[in-house]
Amino acid sequence: MMMFFLIKKMKKKKKLTNKEFEFIKNYFQKLSKKSQGALNLNDDVFFDKKNRLVVSIDTYIEGSHFIDFKKPELVIKKIIRSSISDLICKGVQPKYYFISGSGNKKSFSKLNLSKISKSLNQEQKKYNIFLSGGDTVFSNKLSFTITSIGFSKEIVFRNKAKINDDIYVSGNIGDSYLGLLVLKNKIKLNSRLNKYFTNQYYMPNIQLKLVDHIKKFANTSMDISDGLLADLFKMINNQKVSYKIYLKDIPISNKLKKILALKKLSKIKYISNGDDYQVLFTASKNKRRIIKKISTNYRIKLTKIGSIQSPNKKSLIVDHKNHEISLKNKGYFHHF
Amino acid sequence: MMMFFLIKKMKKKKKLTNKEFEFIKNYFQKLSKKSQGALNLNDDVFFDKKNRLVVSIDTYIEGSHFIDFKKPELVIKKIIRSSISDLICKGVQPKYYFISGSGNKKSFSKLNLSKISKSLNQEQKKYNIFLSGGDTVFSNKLSFTITSIGFSKEIVFRNKAKINDDIYVSGNIGDSYLGLLVLKNKIKLNSRLNKYFTNQYYMPNIQLKLVDHIKKFANTSMDISDGLLADLFKMINNQKVSYKIYLKDIPISNKLKKILALKKLSKIKYISNGDDYQVLFTASKNKRRIIKKISTNYRIKLTKIGSIQSPNKKSLIVDHKNHEISLKNKGYFHHF
Repeated sequence: MMMFFLIKKMKKKKKLTNKEFEFIKNYFQKLSKKSQGALNLNDDVFFDKKNRLVVSIDTYIEGSHFIDFKKPELVIKKIIRSSISDLICKGVQPKYYFISGSGNKKSFSKLNLSKISKSLNQEQKKYNIFLSGGDTVFSNKLSFTITSIGFSKEIVFRNKAKINDDIYVSGNIGDSYLGLLVLKNKIKLNSRLNKYFTNQYYMPNIQLKLVDHIKKFANTSMDISDGLLADLFKMINNQKVSYKIYLKDIPISNKLKKILALKKLSKIKYISNGDDYQVLFTASKNKRRIIKKISTNYRIKLTKIGSIQSPNKKSLIVDHKNHEISLKNKGYFHHF
Repeated sequence: MMMFFLIKKMKKKKKLTNKEFEFIKNYFQKLSKKSQGALNLNDDVFFDKKNRLVVSIDTYIEGSHFIDFKKPELVIKKIIRSSISDLICKGVQPKYYFISGSGNKKSFSKLNLSKISKSLNQEQKKYNIFLSGGDTVFSNKLSFTITSIGFSKEIVFRNKAKINDDIYVSGNIGDSYLGLLVLKNKIKLNSRLNKYFTNQYYMPNIQLKLVDHIKKFANTSMDISDGLLADLFKMINNQKVSYKIYLKDIPISNKLKKILALKKLSKIKYISNGDDYQVLFTASKNKRRIIKKISTNYRIKLTKIGSIQSPNKKSLIVDHKNHEISLKNKGYFHHF
């Protein structure tokens, strides 16, 4: 779930302009203010501190949030991981989840249901979560609403970056987008690579291992669903700070590196398109040691990619020569 | 939320046969068993006793769960009340709610959003609940998923009726269905009555006042969404008991009584079509005094309409001459 009627996977809904978004936000924000108290509303998750409850709710629509339903067993993994990723990036272990599915008889055929059930079972074992309920309703349009719930005394909030913080990202970025291009037949690779990248699209390597550690060092965090730069902007957009990111430091897989070189593709495009479900966070410089230690001990790839700056500097991403990369009109921020 | 991929508003989905339902249930039930422990899955709500958490999730689709979106300000009240009714009937005060809306630009026009926002504000004041989050996604099919959350040490479960229990219902039954027929232009009344009954359809008088008392006397309970008899069946369908209901004792409004007499309409049809959101419960005979007292003191209409019997008797509804009313092929149980 996102801010407030702020729409999470914004890039998937290009028709919603910034103005419209502001309009929706203004209407509904006031309905929640009354309950603010211990609750935090302006974040990826809903947090009721008093009851230690953390909730994430997202709706996933065929054609927008997943390409199609030809492989229900993979789609279901993607949306479950996307949902629990919202909790994980906040340092909250997901405990159970609910599915509300809308679709036609074909989508919920016996074969598809058995595939969905099998996939859910695998995800449950992998992430130690349990299905707690749900319903299915008939509709011509296929969609799923996933609610993930966890319990925690504290969470890592958005908009808590400090000036001079390092900016980190977990895992690798960009594989998922290449997978999507493969699925859309926009890029052709050999079958082994096809499989690797489409698997990265459907089954992102979300960072469950980070749950127990992130609160030890992160000042602020969120997961990358819309794109590294777009989500970085969102993570700190209520703050008076800026950022500097080094493109060369953004971690990508060796496989993606080779393909970018071979096909002369631009790295920035691949790291800006989202669906990565890696964790973006900032941490004070004095946390570098503990971050390195946790990264090594628990085998969690954590890469420093930039830093938070004072607001009188400009937010920017630079190339290997420390030159600013112009993002205007290139679509990397088309969601804003 | 309903049992387990059991589909709540069953009658609204006539295409789903009993066999299909069983199929879905079998596939997904096993995914939840592992988490059973303190959790109760076979009920209208999800209850995590350890964390005192109670959750209800339902999806509402235009044309199925609400007739159309010509009056968004009323539709939104109906679905909010339907959602929190699931908690209220279990003795749980709803605390906050989330909305996930899918629809096109027309459905979420500025005018409609302002109407929705105003209605939500009114409902929040009336029921002391707060919007805690949500998202909107674009889709050609209009639907809403509402998640309602409350906290409670105990809830009133389903399938806990005892033999010789009295069966009660709160408020009046049937007004909502007549309102739906008016909206469908199947019955014509004067404008005053039109308004009364359509308001009952859109704004059912859910029984928030019952929340603090129902645990004192009810053995088992649920709310009436699909129809009194269908929901009574569901409330006890895992038990070896039967019921006897007196049609004449089922409470209906004076307005409905007059119209039934005037137009020679059958009472049983009107009390069997659901959308009432009144509370159905059973209680031991020795609770009659406290029920009467609470009913009087707090002005909550509670009517005894029958009793729970041993399983060797047949479940039945009888007329004023104590003759069984045949329900076969009349559609009152078309959901089963």
